[in-house]
Amino acid sequence: MEIKVLHQIMDWNEDVSEDVRQTLADRHICMINVMGSPGAGKTSLITALIGALKDRFGIGVIEGDIAGQVDADRIAALHIPTVQLNTDGACHIEAMSIQRVLPHLPLDDLDVIFVENIGNLVCPAEFRIGESLRVTLLSIPEGDDKVEKYPLMFTDTDCLVLNKYDMLPYFDFDEERVLSNYETVNPGAPLFRVSSRTGEGMEELAAFIAGRIREAIK
Amino acid sequence: MEIKVLHQIMDWNEDVSEDVRQTLADRHICMINVMGSPGAGKTSLITALIGALKDRFGIGVIEGDIAGQVDADRIAALHIPTVQLNTDGACHIEAMSIQRVLPHLPLDDLDVIFVENIGNLVCPAEFRIGESLRVTLLSIPEGDDKVEKYPLMFTDTDCLVLNKYDMLPYFDFDEERVLSNYETVNPGAPLFRVSSRTGEGMEELAAFIAGRIREAIK
Repeated sequence: MEIKVLHQIMDWNEDVSEDVRQTLADRHICMINVMGSPGAGKTSLITALIGALKDRFGIGVIEGDIAGQVDADRIAALHIPTVQLNTDGACHIEAMSIQRVLPHLPLDDLDVIFVENIGNLVCPAEFRIGESLRVTLLSIPEGDDKVEKYPLMFTDTDCLVLNKYDMLPYFDFDEERVLSNYETVNPGAPLFRVSSRTGEGMEELAAFIAGRIREAIK
Repeated sequence: MEIKVLHQIMDWNEDVSEDVRQTLADRHICMINVMGSPGAGKTSLITALIGALKDRFGIGVIEGDIAGQVDADRIAALHIPTVQLNTDGACHIEAMSIQRVLPHLPLDDLDVIFVENIGNLVCPAEFRIGESLRVTLLSIPEGDDKVEKYPLMFTDTDCLVLNKYDMLPYFDFDEERVLSNYETVNPGAPLFRVSSRTGEGMEELAAFIAGRIREAIK
């Protein structure tokens, strides 16, 4: 019974996701769905990407959180249009929520919308929200077994960002294990080694993201 | 509509959880539900606690994972009765799964069962599984804003373990912020500073857990 219910919700979500995707395509806006564990560094990564991309693109942000607005405050401090989307306990963002939130952003001024999903390696992967690009973060302190343990998140992403890469010397993290598992579930998909703190690898990631934005909004 | 469905599932889960709790109470077994983000260090903590407690108690483990058996292999290597519970994509363990899994453990030999829940700061907090004790991990690299952002997980726990505490010098982690937020949502609840890697703080945590086990199984 439970599985049937989930399918119903997910089918309905797929329909709305396609509506959102079409709305954004008509307006030449690229939506980027940023996913990862709690504390993987999603807000810091978005902040760094805003710094690298804001001279080239109009940027908006939807900050998903279960409660509060800690992250939205951080982004809004950069003078970037930001909407806080509270899920009130739900473990992922659904397309319907994005559809409701979009009118609160100045869409005419935007080329790209970053959506920071709920910190969770499971549920967000199951729900498309109308995005053109999925970015999944895995931070070094989380450990090297995450691709095996949460495969869908790494299968359905357009790129993997190994974040907090400057912390590699302090943790027992077998990078080859991650690379090999990622290649198995998502062959040929790109991977970036990044530290939002030091800026390491950010230029390469920003160039990739910029290319994908240009492709999506042309 | 979605919320109604969730309530139905959760009411049903509460009934089964109470059945499991009663079954275990009749057999004088204490079940401990270990929760935290992906990579917070749940398996390492359970491994360390097994080392500290195995001379005093009969211990079994239920390893929850979405896929695979990486963690179960680690525990079974300690010659501890272990059952792998794969949720096949689901983001939390439900009481019904525990009910089905229990007969596969040698219950007559056990005083305590550790359940390693799915790595997730959201959904597991909503589903009781018949446990006597909830242990929530927050690892230093995850950041100091997690209690604000995932309040239910920290409200409904019997203790908070600040894990990877030896990494404090390497991260910008405001411990006072966590303590203050934790005290707000869960007044008076105990907190332990631990490193499963160095063993720091483990003795104090093990003493607390041992006390709670004795209370539950008397």
